Amino acid sequence: MKKSVTIYDISKKLNISAATVSRALNNHPKISQKTKELVLSAAKELNYIQNTLAQSLKSGKTNRVGIIVPYINSSFFSSVIRGIEEELTPHGYHVIICQSHEDVNLEKKQLSTLLNAQVDGIFMSVSKTTEDTKHIENAKSKTPIIFFDRKKDIAGISTVVIDDYKAGYLATEHLIEQGCRKVCHLLGDLRLEIYQNRYNGYLDALKDNGILLNKDYVIPIESSVEDGIEATKKLWKLASPPDAIFSASDYAALGVCQELRNNNIRIPQDVTVIGFSNEPFTQYMELPISSVDQTPDIMGKISAQVFLEYINENFSGISIEKKVVLNPQLYIRESSKRK
Amino acid sequence: MKKSVTIYDISKKLNISAATVSRALNNHPKISQKTKELVLSAAKELNYIQNTLAQSLKSGKTNRVGIIVPYINSSFFSSVIRGIEEELTPHGYHVIICQSHEDVNLEKKQLSTLLNAQVDGIFMSVSKTTEDTKHIENAKSKTPIIFFDRKKDIAGISTVVIDDYKAGYLATEHLIEQGCRKVCHLLGDLRLEIYQNRYNGYLDALKDNGILLNKDYVIPIESSVEDGIEATKKLWKLASPPDAIFSASDYAALGVCQELRNNNIRIPQDVTVIGFSNEPFTQYMELPISSVDQTPDIMGKISAQVFLEYINENFSGISIEKKVVLNPQLYIRESSKRK
Repeated sequence: MKKSVTIYDISKKLNISAATVSRALNNHPKISQKTKELVLSAAKELNYIQNTLAQSLKSGKTNRVGIIVPYINSSFFSSVIRGIEEELTPHGYHVIICQSHEDVNLEKKQLSTLLNAQVDGIFMSVSKTTEDTKHIENAKSKTPIIFFDRKKDIAGISTVVIDDYKAGYLATEHLIEQGCRKVCHLLGDLRLEIYQNRYNGYLDALKDNGILLNKDYVIPIESSVEDGIEATKKLWKLASPPDAIFSASDYAALGVCQELRNNNIRIPQDVTVIGFSNEPFTQYMELPISSVDQTPDIMGKISAQVFLEYINENFSGISIEKKVVLNPQLYIRESSKRK
Repeated sequence: MKKSVTIYDISKKLNISAATVSRALNNHPKISQKTKELVLSAAKELNYIQNTLAQSLKSGKTNRVGIIVPYINSSFFSSVIRGIEEELTPHGYHVIICQSHEDVNLEKKQLSTLLNAQVDGIFMSVSKTTEDTKHIENAKSKTPIIFFDRKKDIAGISTVVIDDYKAGYLATEHLIEQGCRKVCHLLGDLRLEIYQNRYNGYLDALKDNGILLNKDYVIPIESSVEDGIEATKKLWKLASPPDAIFSASDYAALGVCQELRNNNIRIPQDVTVIGFSNEPFTQYMELPISSVDQTPDIMGKISAQVFLEYINENFSGISIEKKVVLNPQLYIRESSKRK
């Protein structure tokens, strides 16, 4: 049998270190694009990937990874999944996806489904109802787990999230910069850290701009068009309705816009609106809705890279734990652009 | 060990046939709601489902099923998946999802991923590039396969689809009924039967209404906003632009509406527009877009029922093959409503 090609063969051929080859193959940010291309082309020439695949089959790996998301029908989650797939497919991995539908019991079952399917790793974003995390801690001992977006603090589990605090701060500050002082927040489910962080960002942006919090302006919502409509109805029953709305959900922001339009309240002249997640429909509207982009494809790609590093540098007994925090991006559109 | 509860125990308790019990448990349309409720309540009382689960574990079943879709980021596919899950979860099944990204090679790999994960059945909607179907025929001998929406004709594989011909016919007829005679069709990829059928429906509706086909009015597109914009630009360069557009894709229909609006062409007064799939954004628009609904949740539920029947009536050597064709539903909205 022919000897398998290793990263040492590539390193010899290119006269660079094996560590650099490994990092280049894993798309490490510290390696230049030029080196990555050189390594990939050498790997291809030497037929490296196929051999890796053959090796991993021998090693008992299945080259399957699992992803658990609360639901797939959001652009955010499907884009993260896409990012993970794009990064892992060239390495011979296949991706299987499960939905928890925000139900911790289903999440537990999906987790054991994936373990039974002998995946080489699991990417997960926890459900709203996940409080106790024993099922995840147990799974951790059997396969590497990586949290993205919605995480729990568990030792030894790497996380890739965006800075939701900063996102909430920037979104609120942007509305204040448009001349708004009565800024309302449509608040997501506080059982999830992401919504707590967005809320904290909102609170601090108000404070830093000398605006007192009006508790009537904070309305808990589910991420739905209906809840946006209901919240707007409630707000416009107040003696002093808001002049700006920062919604933790694009769907609720859409409901806000619909309800305001139905009442001939002008956006952005009377009220500015910004949502969260940059769902595609926000840009499709005749009056496009501002939103916060969570760079889901980058989140997916980096999650996959963290997994690949884990697999490739898997020294038994050493626990690798990475905390990656991505920058949110504001997309300012007509719904909040006064200036 | 306690003897397992069987459907015969339920049938004895309720004094109805075992076949009726089996059908009721599988939500068969011929069984009345009342009987289904009786059977479910008896099953619960006798602890039937848990025992079934235990049995199926003993029988080597995994209680996992797989779904392969071209992509998850469409409301249509995610709703079919939801329908399958809602129907199968009460029967103790877990669902894992794979994407083919319209690539037959990836589809082959996903199929073997699912077979390796020992699923009890596979639901699939084939990719655009799937011509040769040997991989599916091979898989068929290992696990039951059910096609939904995008199918191939393979003996022994059940299919659940909508009547795309009728959908194309009704959509075109609707535009003609609004007084339009220059009806254009944005044509999907003809490698897929569904698009061929929608096109045939369009052609026959024209013919039945005495309208000659103008080949300039048939423009092939991918399902994207950009392709809708490009097609509109092309159409409005013609000496005689259309007065109606039936798009095989909602995304392209959205591009059409954007481009028409940018050129101050009025919808529906100057041009009527109807899309396909009833993606949620079509109803969110300030000018809501008409569309054809494919009843994806029903498609998912019925696909799941076909699977359950297969599993429960699995007489070895007998091949069950069902062909379910669902009715499409027109959702007429402002973009095509002149009358």
